[in-house]
Amino acid sequence: MSNPIRVAVVGAGGRMGREVVKLVLEDQELELATALDRSAGGIDAGILVGLPASGVIITEDIELAFVEHKPDVMVDFTTPQSAYANTLLAIKHGVRPVIGTTGFTPEQIKELDKLCIEKEIGGLIAPNFSIGAILMMKFAAQASKYFPHVEIIETHGDQKLDAPSGTAIKTAEMIVENREELRQGNPNEEETIEGARGGYYNGFRIHSVRLPGVFAQQEVIFGGYGQTLKIRHDSYERAAYMPGVKVGIQKVMEYTGLVYGFDQFIE
Amino acid sequence: MSNPIRVAVVGAGGRMGREVVKLVLEDQELELATALDRSAGGIDAGILVGLPASGVIITEDIELAFVEHKPDVMVDFTTPQSAYANTLLAIKHGVRPVIGTTGFTPEQIKELDKLCIEKEIGGLIAPNFSIGAILMMKFAAQASKYFPHVEIIETHGDQKLDAPSGTAIKTAEMIVENREELRQGNPNEEETIEGARGGYYNGFRIHSVRLPGVFAQQEVIFGGYGQTLKIRHDSYERAAYMPGVKVGIQKVMEYTGLVYGFDQFIE
Amino acid sequence: MSNPIRVAVVGAGGRMGREVVKLVLEDQELELATALDRSAGGIDAGILVGLPASGVIITEDIELAFVEHKPDVMVDFTTPQSAYANTLLAIKHGVRPVIGTTGFTPEQIKELDKLCIEKEIGGLIAPNFSIGAILMMKFAAQASKYFPHVEIIETHGDQKLDAPSGTAIKTAEMIVENREELRQGNPNEEETIEGARGGYYNGFRIHSVRLPGVFAQQEVIFGGYGQTLKIRHDSYERAAYMPGVKVGIQKVMEYTGLVYGFDQFIE
Amino acid sequence: MSNPIRVAVVGAGGRMGREVVKLVLEDQELELATALDRSAGGIDAGILVGLPASGVIITEDIELAFVEHKPDVMVDFTTPQSAYANTLLAIKHGVRPVIGTTGFTPEQIKELDKLCIEKEIGGLIAPNFSIGAILMMKFAAQASKYFPHVEIIETHGDQKLDAPSGTAIKTAEMIVENREELRQGNPNEEETIEGARGGYYNGFRIHSVRLPGVFAQQEVIFGGYGQTLKIRHDSYERAAYMPGVKVGIQKVMEYTGLVYGFDQFIE
Repeated sequence: MSNPIRVAVVGAGGRMGREVVKLVLEDQELELATALDRSAGGIDAGILVGLPASGVIITEDIELAFVEHKPDVMVDFTTPQSAYANTLLAIKHGVRPVIGTTGFTPEQIKELDKLCIEKEIGGLIAPNFSIGAILMMKFAAQASKYFPHVEIIETHGDQKLDAPSGTAIKTAEMIVENREELRQGNPNEEETIEGARGGYYNGFRIHSVRLPGVFAQQEVIFGGYGQTLKIRHDSYERAAYMPGVKVGIQKVMEYTGLVYGFDQFIE
Repeated sequence: MSNPIRVAVVGAGGRMGREVVKLVLEDQELELATALDRSAGGIDAGILVGLPASGVIITEDIELAFVEHKPDVMVDFTTPQSAYANTLLAIKHGVRPVIGTTGFTPEQIKELDKLCIEKEIGGLIAPNFSIGAILMMKFAAQASKYFPHVEIIETHGDQKLDAPSGTAIKTAEMIVENREELRQGNPNEEETIEGARGGYYNGFRIHSVRLPGVFAQQEVIFGGYGQTLKIRHDSYERAAYMPGVKVGIQKVMEYTGLVYGFDQFIE
Repeated sequence: MSNPIRVAVVGAGGRMGREVVKLVLEDQELELATALDRSAGGIDAGILVGLPASGVIITEDIELAFVEHKPDVMVDFTTPQSAYANTLLAIKHGVRPVIGTTGFTPEQIKELDKLCIEKEIGGLIAPNFSIGAILMMKFAAQASKYFPHVEIIETHGDQKLDAPSGTAIKTAEMIVENREELRQGNPNEEETIEGARGGYYNGFRIHSVRLPGVFAQQEVIFGGYGQTLKIRHDSYERAAYMPGVKVGIQKVMEYTGLVYGFDQFIE
Repeated sequence: MSNPIRVAVVGAGGRMGREVVKLVLEDQELELATALDRSAGGIDAGILVGLPASGVIITEDIELAFVEHKPDVMVDFTTPQSAYANTLLAIKHGVRPVIGTTGFTPEQIKELDKLCIEKEIGGLIAPNFSIGAILMMKFAAQASKYFPHVEIIETHGDQKLDAPSGTAIKTAEMIVENREELRQGNPNEEETIEGARGGYYNGFRIHSVRLPGVFAQQEVIFGGYGQTLKIRHDSYERAAYMPGVKVGIQKVMEYTGLVYGFDQFIE
């Protein structure tokens, strides 16, 4: 077996950061090189996430940590602002960035790609690391060729601000590219309670359920002639993104330049 | 074992009538006394519904059939207009009516009750014979005491005219009687596609899905603190009403007067 | 619009035959040329299936019907024995066979292919016409590349004799071709009730639920790191096979020779 | 509004302890009086669980903490051994115990009840704090009176040792008390893969699915005549027990003596 990949986790005390720390500590192909956080400094990274002490004490100075611990990869799920600065620092020190933050501008992405190529390292920025969600979208798109009658039901926590979810809209777009044009339902249909039939999108409907206790769920339902076909993805917690993060960590070791989006790692 | 109950099926060639014929032919506690239909006269009732020949030939003259075959019970899933006339005829001949039609006026119900009492027979008019649907509504009402956060998703065939369904509205009313008042969701929530959040009813949401191939389905979802509780009833076909019809046939043999609504036979 | 395809339905009074009659009568691209059945002779095919009278009276003599009505296609969901004889007759008269019966021998299939080619017509024998079930199996196979942890739950009517279902076993085989080898579960797992963990197949488990009221349902569940991906197909009734039957009817008009299996019409 | 209830959390660094700390810090009707843990001493309880600093530093000496901080209630999800000792200490100091540990002997429970009564305080030991799971079991028991055909499917993480789960067995027992005796399925049914039909229990079947990423899910499916009724409870994480823990904390303030089991707080 080859040496484990040495990972620096930035924002280790944040919600996603904690999951990344757990992933790295529990996976034998990965090693926690260093862990950074502004408010959890001084605490052992293992203790912080509910695991045995790891010997890695959380610090605040990223550049110093890169110099001292020479990580192969930096994983950053912080904010767009700090992620950009951290990525510049990482590339400068030959540390491959794996970034789970949205909000980078096309110019920034172009620049970071150029810097990665100059340094001959790989990098990844991915707004969605969920392999399951990506498969759900691909299958839904394929099925809509044969079952043009479709509705999407997505369920998220009750404090979510926007409806429908980004994933639901992305799914709907992918369906439209594959499905024959069709306005579903009875043309004389009437809502006795306004909105009951959900949001209208290119001939079909999207429904957004918001309930406390739910993290992120989506079901795409196809109906026709005495049957339904359902494709459903349930994320129960942030850990759902970790298999994708691990694939990202492994992939950036193998290529040069910055990749945007995780989809292309899935056939 | 006691003698089977002798049943007359009116509207035997209709969608529900066919199911009632099947029920009666296949259940040993029931016996098909006669079967009536205006357009299927002359055909054997068994052949009509895809069973072996039953020896009962479908006829058109209801009163004659009552006199000749002396049924104990008449089951009628025709239209409000003919059901009323049929019920009068049935009571006159001492045949207990079991009616699955909506649209009777309160005056008609009162009158039929009086006639049943005079004749010392039972009768039943029930807009919903689905035991499963009635249990779903009762459980949903009970659960809403403990889980005030709730949404209803109902799915019906794509040619249904009204949304939400009558069952969804009835369920919502029963929930409101038990649930603490609460306006769910984030107060700053925004729909980027209008209607995505569903129909608003007393603080919670109802979603109506319409897809071909579906008969009648409803799911009531309660959410809270890392968990969901779901109560789901799926009717796949008209046969779903038959266990309730059978209970109705048995019950009208036991009491006197007209009962309206099936709920009261369920604890 | 081109002329409708003229269809002969053999076994029109059987469970599947009735569905085919409905399909043909209700679809404008199809026309009921003739309908055959040994026990429902003399009845109008429309009345038999609960539709308005169609003018097509069910008869018994297949060869005569072929000669008189010159159908383009014969659909046969009878038994293996009669289907073979019917197929020979159909080809002889230039009627393209679409057969939904299992049990043909490889020799018979070879022979029928040769006869179709000689007659320059297409033919199809397909044990499974369900497009939805075929998509479910394809998606499950694809997903198992990324989510090796999988279980299959299939639900059928409570009088089904064999468990697991043929579809479940076919799905499991397709998964095995794509999934990394892996023995799931805790090696020290113990069943306090024997069989609770389901049937073991190449490292994963298959569960067969049998309940009255269910026609055919299957869910393939993939699990990993805080998420599940579910692919579910529910057939509510025999009508679920009809879109596939229609595709079959259309396809046999376009090629020459006998095709075995419906999968190849799905990308 | 009355004063918040002051809570001591024992085992604050454990998996359940962390959830209790979060519950208490985020709920305005509760106040964190003190938090105890043997390996997380010196860390702020808020920081440990990913919340802002709370000002409560985790300590190790329970008795000292009771004396200094005078909590109203102690919540303990540690081990049976330490929970017993902690409960004795709590009662001695007039702190009401709420214990989520199994394994107490009947003698211990009797003794603790006597001590609570002497001290005129309430106490609670509950092996299952999930309100949703308790409702699911009650509804399943009720439904089985009307739908005797039932199967249970429970899904847990793939490292669970026992199958079926304790909740599945409890549910099955409650169903048996309400359901007419009946051996489901075709008497000539055959398993081509042994165990496919699941574990046999008093005429019906229980299926145990084990997949990584799942915490605790159970579905009870009733089937009959063209319909299914499903009651499903999904726990996504330990937080699912917290509403029950809160009810427990509030209830022990209101009565005297030790209550065993949470069910009786649910009508």
